[in-house]
Amino acid sequence: MGLPFTTFLPAGRRIVLRAAERHDIRAIVELFTDDRIGAGRDGVADATDLAAYDEAFEAIDRDPAHVLLVAEDEGSTVVGTLQLSLLPGMARRGALRAQIEAVRVAAVMRGQGLGSIMIRWAVGEATERGCVLVQLTTDRRRVDAHRLYERLGFQATHHGMKRPLP
Amino acid sequence: MGLPFTTFLPAGRRIVLRAAERHDIRAIVELFTDDRIGAGRDGVADATDLAAYDEAFEAIDRDPAHVLLVAEDEGSTVVGTLQLSLLPGMARRGALRAQIEAVRVAAVMRGQGLGSIMIRWAVGEATERGCVLVQLTTDRRRVDAHRLYERLGFQATHHGMKRPLP
Repeated sequence: MGLPFTTFLPAGRRIVLRAAERHDIRAIVELFTDDRIGAGRDGVADATDLAAYDEAFEAIDRDPAHVLLVAEDEGSTVVGTLQLSLLPGMARRGALRAQIEAVRVAAVMRGQGLGSIMIRWAVGEATERGCVLVQLTTDRRRVDAHRLYERLGFQATHHGMKRPLP
Repeated sequence: MGLPFTTFLPAGRRIVLRAAERHDIRAIVELFTDDRIGAGRDGVADATDLAAYDEAFEAIDRDPAHVLLVAEDEGSTVVGTLQLSLLPGMARRGALRAQIEAVRVAAVMRGQGLGSIMIRWAVGEATERGCVLVQLTTDRRRVDAHRLYERLGFQATHHGMKRPLP
């Protein structure tokens, strides 16, 4: 698909998808805190927090296996984000798989088709890069998100299991 | 944890965990085909198949973000495998997360604690490498595997959704 990619919400508003840059870090963190489920896990309270996000941004940015996407509205405000990661693997005849992580849409933009635009971009990008599968895990409480993913061809064939580390 | 790592099954049999080498590729594919759910998706019918596995092995092997693990029994037979991948990400204060993929135990070795040994190794390795979370998806039909993962501290808080690509 390539980036930047300009498109329109169903209601007509223009959206630009592009690779995140360092100056987007705070806006991305605000999307994380603007989220019922993940809010408590994120935020920039001090320089240590900011340094951790900077370091993560660098790790993502320097490795072509990962794309950190942002969606910008007409006022150049960051209103959405997701991460697309490509994973090599032996299973399915040595298939490359794509994984979508950290999908967030700004509260004021929800229900307008932005999530769908970002996921469709990710599916297209994964296809162009030769992946045979796109996968994601979604919190069981995100019922609206499940419907979105199902409409876009994803099936909940698996359990997504997590274990925090000390 | 480091590799190779020698340990013992509860019944006493010695197991060595080590990084897979190129000469293990056929044994790993045999573990994939020795599996009720994944069998039809894998196999080495011809040189094209083998080349695809070779290429995937190379991609995993050259990137320190991925470890392809094999478990060897006393006769130096490969009886288990999994892949551990480290994923940088912005969420959870720029947390590095670990993902476990393609867990397989040879049919003759099931129910003897080998899966548990491999997963505990992966959790330990992820901890040492600074991850804050280990995650995996597991097919809803693998009921025995869910019990194993739950015993090892994983919780099915998420749906694992997949979409095949054309």
